Amino acid sequence: MNANEMRKDYLLERWVVIATERKKRPTDFAKEQAPAKPGTCPFDPGNESKTPAAQLVYLRSKSNRIKKTKDNETLRHKDWLIRCFPNLFPAFSPPEIGKKVKMREDPFLFDAVGAHEVVVESPCHDEHPGVARISQLTLVVEACMDRLATLSAKPYVKYVSIFRNHGLEAGASLSHAHSQIIATPFVPQTLKEEVNASRKLWKQNHKCALCDILEREMKSPRFIWENDGFGVFAPWASVNPLEFWILPKKHQASPLEMKKKAREDLAETLRVCLGGLSTLLNDPPYNYGFHIAPSADVAEYYHWHIEVYPKLAIWAGFEKSTGIYINTVPPEDAAASLKEATKKEQKY
Amino acid sequence: MNANEMRKDYLLERWVVIATERKKRPTDFAKEQAPAKPGTCPFDPGNESKTPAAQLVYLRSKSNRIKKTKDNETLRHKDWLIRCFPNLFPAFSPPEIGKKVKMREDPFLFDAVGAHEVVVESPCHDEHPGVARISQLTLVVEACMDRLATLSAKPYVKYVSIFRNHGLEAGASLSHAHSQIIATPFVPQTLKEEVNASRKLWKQNHKCALCDILEREMKSPRFIWENDGFGVFAPWASVNPLEFWILPKKHQASPLEMKKKAREDLAETLRVCLGGLSTLLNDPPYNYGFHIAPSADVAEYYHWHIEVYPKLAIWAGFEKSTGIYINTVPPEDAAASLKEATKKEQKY
Repeated sequence: MNANEMRKDYLLERWVVIATERKKRPTDFAKEQAPAKPGTCPFDPGNESKTPAAQLVYLRSKSNRIKKTKDNETLRHKDWLIRCFPNLFPAFSPPEIGKKVKMREDPFLFDAVGAHEVVVESPCHDEHPGVARISQLTLVVEACMDRLATLSAKPYVKYVSIFRNHGLEAGASLSHAHSQIIATPFVPQTLKEEVNASRKLWKQNHKCALCDILEREMKSPRFIWENDGFGVFAPWASVNPLEFWILPKKHQASPLEMKKKAREDLAETLRVCLGGLSTLLNDPPYNYGFHIAPSADVAEYYHWHIEVYPKLAIWAGFEKSTGIYINTVPPEDAAASLKEATKKEQKY
Repeated sequence: MNANEMRKDYLLERWVVIATERKKRPTDFAKEQAPAKPGTCPFDPGNESKTPAAQLVYLRSKSNRIKKTKDNETLRHKDWLIRCFPNLFPAFSPPEIGKKVKMREDPFLFDAVGAHEVVVESPCHDEHPGVARISQLTLVVEACMDRLATLSAKPYVKYVSIFRNHGLEAGASLSHAHSQIIATPFVPQTLKEEVNASRKLWKQNHKCALCDILEREMKSPRFIWENDGFGVFAPWASVNPLEFWILPKKHQASPLEMKKKAREDLAETLRVCLGGLSTLLNDPPYNYGFHIAPSADVAEYYHWHIEVYPKLAIWAGFEKSTGIYINTVPPEDAAASLKEATKKEQKY
């Protein structure tokens, strides 16, 4: 097995994984891909052998409590509530024992060491966050936190990205409700820039930039929804139509700081806001990603959050060659629509 | 008419145009858009009145030479070869006479002053670069250069982006062969970063970075095609499957430096390489964009070029939240396929 390569652009601080482990021939793109037949979903219960052994399984114990365990090569657990396992076509993989890893000696090339995992969110194929039971979504949040804690502790991991692709047009190749987790051997450029800007603003204003922004946006026409733990708003410079951000109200650098109540609050927030989006636009495709402090030393000024990007527009030649975006829906209009939609959603 | 707003992200150096001039209601996205009926294309000859008056029209004169002119409000030229006019739904617009423009006083907001134009590339609906007559494509290059020169001279313009969206999935809302030109009141972030990196490498190595890269890539497994004026290769860190870049062999900061022969060479390069891509993958969607030195003082070390991005993969949650890309086609494989395809294409 060849490790995937990370390569840097000639000029930009832009890295790409050349994913030979999921390699395609150029002409593969000429064919239309047939959608999977019903009943053949590898993430459905009963099909556990179609995926790698799970590193984390949540089961219901006899006393009705959650039991956390894992598969081994001979045993695949059945009757699971949540199942996490390595992606069959990983972009990043753990270092192989005894094999030398190319780290950042070459400024333009190194091995894509890390991890790439799938979190199956429910045994029910279609239990997506916008329609899920909050109790189930709370388990999803908890499982992501378990894997985040485990992966963050690996010596070769510098950042852990938790994200979700919903719908074919947003890059979900399988429709069963699932999130993904990628651990990278360096801090991604977007996070670096966010951390640097947060540090600069913190030095200027002696407070966390996103604490400040949340306070202001909760009173602005971009406010959408809130509960005890979280505030939701359409960001001032939304690059996507209907984009919204979910921020913890209390300053936290990492979602690992969430206690039980906060995890339930986050589950409720995802349920209501993604449910609202789904109702408003008939289940549109979307992506979301956690933005997390990459290290403890930035905890004072980096504020973790989730950015939700509905996939309603196409980034075309202008966006791709300049880095400037065009958004045809003012965030204030997006917030007004989403606010209405979340009101109806509260009756879940 | 309200000017569109440019807004900056809370943290990132990321700007978005909130395009109220092409404003959509959030719920507009819930509906499927019907494709235009045949015969109703506003860019077809005879439908000139469906678009704004052209700022530049190429006509065939009686002596068979190209005559350059423009429409006025009462006269729309017929029998044109090339037609350039303002986009009906512009992202950027010229400042209105007598109206104060919000420039960069506020660090998070200013008016989207500039220009947004369409270059109709041919009276023939489907004369896209991959199948076009080279004589016609040479006129397209020339018309883009004419507009680039005119727009670059405006006092409120700091950068001019020339780009092309091909196919619905790549953001082309109309299928008639056309390019677009957007002039912005500041230098886009991507260009700033390219210029800064080029300057740094030039100081280190006492030569232009892309001159050096072109020389090396022409001898690498990523080489695709060349003629007298241009070299084409799959870049080392391609973020898109089948991506390729077109570089002038002679160091040039701006395509305005091209003489007649070089413009013909560029037309041939576009014909052969986009033709090869089209033949290889059955006319896939793509975007391309010119990358041009934003000012004369960077001319020594900035090398203009065109980046072609076939639209064969989806940038999903991971890409959008980290800025790291995953490409499943090694550029070396892409180059081998494209090299073969361009060989067949040379018999146009």
